[in-house]
Order: sequence, then structure tokens, then C-alpha cells
Amino acid sequence: MPRTALLRDSEAKLQHILQHSAQIFANRGFAGASMRDVSRSTGISLSGLYYYFKSKQELLYLIQKKAFTSVVHRLQSELPAVSNPQARLKLFISNHLDYFLAHPAEMKVLSHEDDALEEPYKKEIGAIKRRYYNLACEIFEDVTREKTAGLANPRIAILILYGMMNWIYKWHNAAVDPSAEELSETICSIFLHGALNGRNGATADGPGRNRLSLEKIGTPE
Amino acid sequence: MPRTALLRDSEAKLQHILQHSAQIFANRGFAGASMRDVSRSTGISLSGLYYYFKSKQELLYLIQKKAFTSVVHRLQSELPAVSNPQARLKLFISNHLDYFLAHPAEMKVLSHEDDALEEPYKKEIGAIKRRYYNLACEIFEDVTREKTAGLANPRIAILILYGMMNWIYKWHNAAVDPSAEELSETICSIFLHGALNGRNGATADGPGRNRLSLEKIGTPE
Repeated sequence: MPRTALLRDSEAKLQHILQHSAQIFANRGFAGASMRDVSRSTGISLSGLYYYFKSKQELLYLIQKKAFTSVVHRLQSELPAVSNPQARLKLFISNHLDYFLAHPAEMKVLSHEDDALEEPYKKEIGAIKRRYYNLACEIFEDVTREKTAGLANPRIAILILYGMMNWIYKWHNAAVDPSAEELSETICSIFLHGALNGRNGATADGPGRNRLSLEKIGTPE
Repeated sequence: MPRTALLRDSEAKLQHILQHSAQIFANRGFAGASMRDVSRSTGISLSGLYYYFKSKQELLYLIQKKAFTSVVHRLQSELPAVSNPQARLKLFISNHLDYFLAHPAEMKVLSHEDDALEEPYKKEIGAIKRRYYNLACEIFEDVTREKTAGLANPRIAILILYGMMNWIYKWHNAAVDPSAEELSETICSIFLHGALNGRNGATADGPGRNRLSLEKIGTPE
């Protein structure tokens, strides 16, 4: 096999392992999952697995790195096309939810197992998370700069927003609950304007006097 | 020792065990903690511990039961004195945060280890949680009933509110972050009226044209 095809094959196999491992960690918890579980689920021998990473810790690190990097890169590539501050915040939220509702196992592992990661991995993931958090703060500060009132403490505001988004792994049931798009709109609306002015699919035909129309600001300009 | 004093002593010892165990589960995770850790931390022999509960599962159940029961009872005892719907929602939030910021280990165990509980305990705790959730929904529906606009889906609204409150265990640092009172006010304000109208200690002297004063509705009438 030529070298590029080998690399492709190797990369595909790694992605296959990461996907199955995220599912196993989500189901059994990181502490409760074994390399043997990963081997069984992926159909790759234990010694075969160690070709791709040297420990369960490195596996957790690779899952977290892939997810956070994807989320941050996607956001960074889409932000430049959007200038309206509220639309940028909406993009931040929908980018986050799009990714994590499409990757529920990763969402659970990232939210639930962030404590489990040890050094030197912890530091590296911490740096990506900080970049993401700083982006969120900048976006939020641009929104508040436009207003004379509003929360002056972006740390608290952003961490409250993170809670709205990240707690979803505890309750979202794809069979009955709103899609990423609808949820993003609801969360963005509650965050900016409150539940009393919130917009939600179910109220689309109801009286909308005080309701914010996020469609208007949701389109990149 | 008379029987009542013995009972008192036994109850105090159980509370001592629950408190230490919550701390251990918070630090090491439920899966990673052993009865030997509990024994070491409480100074009670392994066989002594089994006088109070028969398994680590029962211990987790007792911690969860105590916390949820306290939170629900306190809320139920204070709600009748408050009639304004927004003040009742504020009470729901501040009751939750008062308890959990005063019991950070329990907050982490309840948020993080809810999956770890098995039957028959799971069912019983599930019933208390459902009662709490139904109370939250009723309180929220009373708030929206007063308004012509607003979220029509209380399930989503309440779960988003839960996220704002429960994610706190991930980030709250008592040394630098706002108190339970201030955070309750911020969360209630964001939830009802959005971050753009949010109120927060740091902005107390800033321009407040659009800012909601929650002090007004925070007093039971």
C-alpha cells in the first residue's frame, strides 16, 4: 500500500477508535471503562490499540482535543462573516449546540470527565478551552458595549451561558426535544432577553408583542 | 446511656458520615471512592460503618435523599408566604443556590453522580426530583400566565434554568465569585429578563435604565 493510503487508513482507524471510545466513556464513565472494552467495541486488538495511543489518558485527551478543536475552528472560520454582535453570539451558541447535539457521547465525556484528565494533557486542553472562553467573552462584551445596561461581569454571564448549553447532556432526548437550531434560538433569546420575552417553536403563533425575532439577527451579513 | 441520647448520638454519627462521604465522593468520584476511604476520613471502623448502611450505593442514596429532601422541604415551607409569581421564582432559585453553595460537595455529588445510583434507590430519588421539577414548572407557569408573551414550553425553560443553576458546581470559587444571594439575583434576572437587562453587583452604580430591580420582588409579601 502506498504511504499516503496507509496514512489515510491509519487516520480513519484512529477516528473509528475515538468515536467508539467516546461512546464507551459516556456509557460507563471514564473510570469504569477499560482498554479491553475499547478493544471489544472497535474490533482492534489491545496491542493494535497501543499503536494509536499509549494509555486511556491519552485516549481521553484525543477525544477532548478533537471535539474542542473542531468547535473552536468552526467558530473561528464562521465569525468573520458576521458583524452584528447579537448575531455573533447566536453563532457562538448554535455552533456549540450543532456540534454537541450531533456528538452526544462526546458532549457527555467533555462535560462529565473534564476532571479526569491529568497532566500534561490537562494543560494542553486547558489552553484550548481558555481560547474558546476568551472568544465567548469578547463576543459577549461586544453585545453589551452596544447597550447602556446589562451585566458588567462577563465571567459570570458566560459561565451561566455555559450552564444553559452544557447541562443539555443531562436531559436532551433527540426523540422529543427541540433540534440544535431551535434550542440555540431559545437559549440565545433567554440569555439576551429572558424567558418572558423568549421565543420558542411552540409559541410561534401566539401573541408576540414582546418577543424577539432572532431570525432577523441570525443571518450572517 | 438512655435510649433517646443513644438515638441522638447515632443520628449525629450518621450526619458526620454523610458529610465526610459527600466530600470523598466529590473529590474521587463515586466509582473511585472506597468504603476504606470513608472509614479513614470518619474515624469509624469498616464494621462500624455497616451499622449505618449496607453498601456504598445506600450511602450515595442517603446523601442524595438528605440534600433533595432539605431543598424541597425548605422551598415548600417558604412558598406559602410569597404570592407574587416572579418572587416565587426568585425564591425557588435562591433556595436552590443557598443550599448548594453552602454544601458544595453535595452539589457536586448530586450533579455529577446522579447516573451512579441504582435501583431501588434510583426510583425513590427520582420521585423526589420529580416533585421538585413539578414545583418548578408550576412556579414558572404562574410567571408566564401573567404575560402575553414568553416561552410556552415549561420543560425546556426549566431545564435551561436547571443548567444555569447546576453547572455552578463546575466553576464557582467561593473566594472570588458572587455569593448565593447575588448569583440567585443574577440568574433570576437573566432567566426572566435576559443578560442585557441583567442586574449584577458590579453594575450597581452604572446606568440602570433598563435594569430590573429584583429587590422589589424579592421580598415575601
